[in-house]
Amino acid sequence: MKSFSVEEITSLLKGEQIGLCKDIIYAPEQIENATKGNVTFIGNSKYAKLWENSNASVAIVYEGITILPEEGKAFIKVKNPDLAMAVLLEAFEPESPYFETDIHPTAVIDKTVTLGKGCKVGANSYVGKNVVLGDNVTIYPNVSIFDDTTIGNETVIWSGTVIRERTKIGSHCIFHVNVSIGADGFGYRPSPDGRGLVKIIHIGNVVIGNAVEIGANSCVDRGKFSSTILGDGCKIDNLVQIGHNSVLGRCCIMAGHSGLAGSVTLGDGVIIGGSASIKDHVTIHSGAKVGAGSGVIADIAAGKSVVGYPACDSREKMKQWVALRKLGRS
Amino acid sequence: MKSFSVEEITSLLKGEQIGLCKDIIYAPEQIENATKGNVTFIGNSKYAKLWENSNASVAIVYEGITILPEEGKAFIKVKNPDLAMAVLLEAFEPESPYFETDIHPTAVIDKTVTLGKGCKVGANSYVGKNVVLGDNVTIYPNVSIFDDTTIGNETVIWSGTVIRERTKIGSHCIFHVNVSIGADGFGYRPSPDGRGLVKIIHIGNVVIGNAVEIGANSCVDRGKFSSTILGDGCKIDNLVQIGHNSVLGRCCIMAGHSGLAGSVTLGDGVIIGGSASIKDHVTIHSGAKVGAGSGVIADIAAGKSVVGYPACDSREKMKQWVALRKLGRS
Amino acid sequence: MKSFSVEEITSLLKGEQIGLCKDIIYAPEQIENATKGNVTFIGNSKYAKLWENSNASVAIVYEGITILPEEGKAFIKVKNPDLAMAVLLEAFEPESPYFETDIHPTAVIDKTVTLGKGCKVGANSYVGKNVVLGDNVTIYPNVSIFDDTTIGNETVIWSGTVIRERTKIGSHCIFHVNVSIGADGFGYRPSPDGRGLVKIIHIGNVVIGNAVEIGANSCVDRGKFSSTILGDGCKIDNLVQIGHNSVLGRCCIMAGHSGLAGSVTLGDGVIIGGSASIKDHVTIHSGAKVGAGSGVIADIAAGKSVVGYPACDSREKMKQWVALRKLGRS
Repeated sequence: MKSFSVEEITSLLKGEQIGLCKDIIYAPEQIENATKGNVTFIGNSKYAKLWENSNASVAIVYEGITILPEEGKAFIKVKNPDLAMAVLLEAFEPESPYFETDIHPTAVIDKTVTLGKGCKVGANSYVGKNVVLGDNVTIYPNVSIFDDTTIGNETVIWSGTVIRERTKIGSHCIFHVNVSIGADGFGYRPSPDGRGLVKIIHIGNVVIGNAVEIGANSCVDRGKFSSTILGDGCKIDNLVQIGHNSVLGRCCIMAGHSGLAGSVTLGDGVIIGGSASIKDHVTIHSGAKVGAGSGVIADIAAGKSVVGYPACDSREKMKQWVALRKLGRS
Repeated sequence: MKSFSVEEITSLLKGEQIGLCKDIIYAPEQIENATKGNVTFIGNSKYAKLWENSNASVAIVYEGITILPEEGKAFIKVKNPDLAMAVLLEAFEPESPYFETDIHPTAVIDKTVTLGKGCKVGANSYVGKNVVLGDNVTIYPNVSIFDDTTIGNETVIWSGTVIRERTKIGSHCIFHVNVSIGADGFGYRPSPDGRGLVKIIHIGNVVIGNAVEIGANSCVDRGKFSSTILGDGCKIDNLVQIGHNSVLGRCCIMAGHSGLAGSVTLGDGVIIGGSASIKDHVTIHSGAKVGAGSGVIADIAAGKSVVGYPACDSREKMKQWVALRKLGRS
Repeated sequence: MKSFSVEEITSLLKGEQIGLCKDIIYAPEQIENATKGNVTFIGNSKYAKLWENSNASVAIVYEGITILPEEGKAFIKVKNPDLAMAVLLEAFEPESPYFETDIHPTAVIDKTVTLGKGCKVGANSYVGKNVVLGDNVTIYPNVSIFDDTTIGNETVIWSGTVIRERTKIGSHCIFHVNVSIGADGFGYRPSPDGRGLVKIIHIGNVVIGNAVEIGANSCVDRGKFSSTILGDGCKIDNLVQIGHNSVLGRCCIMAGHSGLAGSVTLGDGVIIGGSASIKDHVTIHSGAKVGAGSGVIADIAAGKSVVGYPACDSREKMKQWVALRKLGRS
């Protein structure tokens, strides 16, 4: 466990320290639960009221808030408490699980695999033919990576994740647990006798940029042909579905349970709220925002905010909701 | 396969047997499909009509329903047929998969792990540093458990489940297959140059009480700092998302595909319907019910029932739906 | 990588070739991205405009569209471009990952297992007691299959998938990665003291027909008693939930994130759109279609199309949406 003096934290945050506190600080904690040895956060006046009765040793306080110093406790004034919290979390970040040996003896690694410098492969993982791992790639236990996949430097793959053949993954990515990359897209055609369904073979792959993060139990299907593509810096939450041949630009955000049907295009910086669904072949242009729970069935212009099902302009939808509420009461 | 005489079943259910049947009863079955050797259930008059033509050997019947005895078939009158069914299912429950050896030789268990009495660890599972397993914990094959996690007595972890570092799990819990516990919460801040996203490090953990059940492919993210908490007796269905720093009280129920964004608070006995989503920082007080498919964007008072998106009082929402239906026809 | 001459492709598609092209064709590609050596598709006039500036070597063209031949490029007229694409994808389909040895030495296979001819079991997979695998079954690495399960000929199970006890699976099925079959259904009753929940034991199983495909991270729960049943030819997308005792007829389609609560009945050829949810005990009769994002709370007649929440006739729902939009603007 890492720990710091209050002076070290003040210096780290480039803040202004008020009051003195000799306690060793070993963890951040919410103000309601904080005790001796904790650093807490006061970002608005709601939390300021709790300071007097808090047992926290030290608080990070927005400079616009006035709190009084107390005996044996300190606070640190900062311009941007959100940024200060982020910096502090990095300082307190525990070590990742440690590998005794880089390549665990129970890992099954095909002899044709290329391993970069400092690669680690955990217990009982499988790495198939012609896979190329860049430098310092970490594969945790019980991962399966199939043939001809390439993974860039510093990327981390957590347990239970499966990466199918021919996937291309950039550097500095994080794949959380039980992620599914590159399974067949979902497509069928009626059988000639009209009585059944014939599978449409999907021969494409998945291409993922740099600094992409994919949440637990999320799925990215491979293209029918060509590729399903996630641009640099995309951040995908848990239980998200990305259908075959969808293309995401840079730094898109998709929240939990959201989904793209096949061949959806997202521009750069698109934000998709939780549980929102996007119809196949729709384009959502750069900077657009889709509210949680929405169903998008038509293209969205750049920068626009939509919500509801069928999704429309957020302000218009609010008016519809107000009108419906009135109607229900009349 | 277990089997019972009709008299044994009557005694088990403390019911009143009408008619005689010498068949050995080896399984419960729905009345439409039941054959000789099956016990079936008649909880209401809809099913009573099927009794005459049923081949079931014996039926459990609600005492308020009148059916006639038939040659070679019996029925057992009970006060509470739902409870009788539950008791009968326990009696017929098959053995769980059997372990030839408690610790399979292919399991990778760090030398620092503490194993309670009667612990079982299946083939190809991984248990990391300083993990503490209580007595009679069962870990099925292909599970991954990371450093400093503790698991209480009698808890069962099914295959494909991954539990990240520092998770605390109570006793008598069941984690179904492909569950993901303790992955990073989903949080980013704009990069200083305004052109990207910087990951906010999540250093907290997940704390799970006693008798908690978590369904297949469900996810519980760890806290940003402090903990994501599930109280005793919570029952979580499949494909559920529980975001970082959410706190659930005792005996909450979340149905399939439902989700809590970050920092949601549920009181005790809250019921969340299937596919419902709860916005971040919302509080749902004890005993409240959220209907299936709802989107909750504001706090819900104790005991209240809400439905729809945005969710509102269930009766009010019904009126809105009726009004909208009329409007569509006018 | 497979490759073909233009003449070979023409012959394969039984089309009419216009123009000559000597290039070796190694992959299909969308017209926007296609280069020398690619075959592309022109199914409608929107894409026909891109042909002139495309670098594709050859295009498959719907016979009703007029495009002009160009130097060094060819096109192939076909009656049904969708079918032609499907045929072409099959021709270009890459080999599946190759097994050096049929049964990997790290696979853990109980001595009571019955293996058909040509079965393959990948690294670190687990196959429990009395499991019966038909001929040419392929189990990829890191799969777990529990006791008394039977799997028919030619079925393929991808990595991370877990199949619980007593499941019956037909032939020619595909289970994609991280699928969960046969976990306990979700059912509880109030504890006698009224203060908690008691688990209802689920002793049933899952029965899956022939030619069924189940997408990544999808779940099928086992029956309370008797079985959860998927008929022949059902196609299930990613992240789908199928609750205990649901029964699906032949060739039903369920798109991503859709879900059936317990004891839902689907007839034959039912189509459930993405993110749609079906209430427990509802019957949806053959040929009915449920639109994406719908919430179905009552039975649906054969052949009917419904949408919305609560779901109603699609045309009626459209009128409601139009009326609501007007109302919001008034």
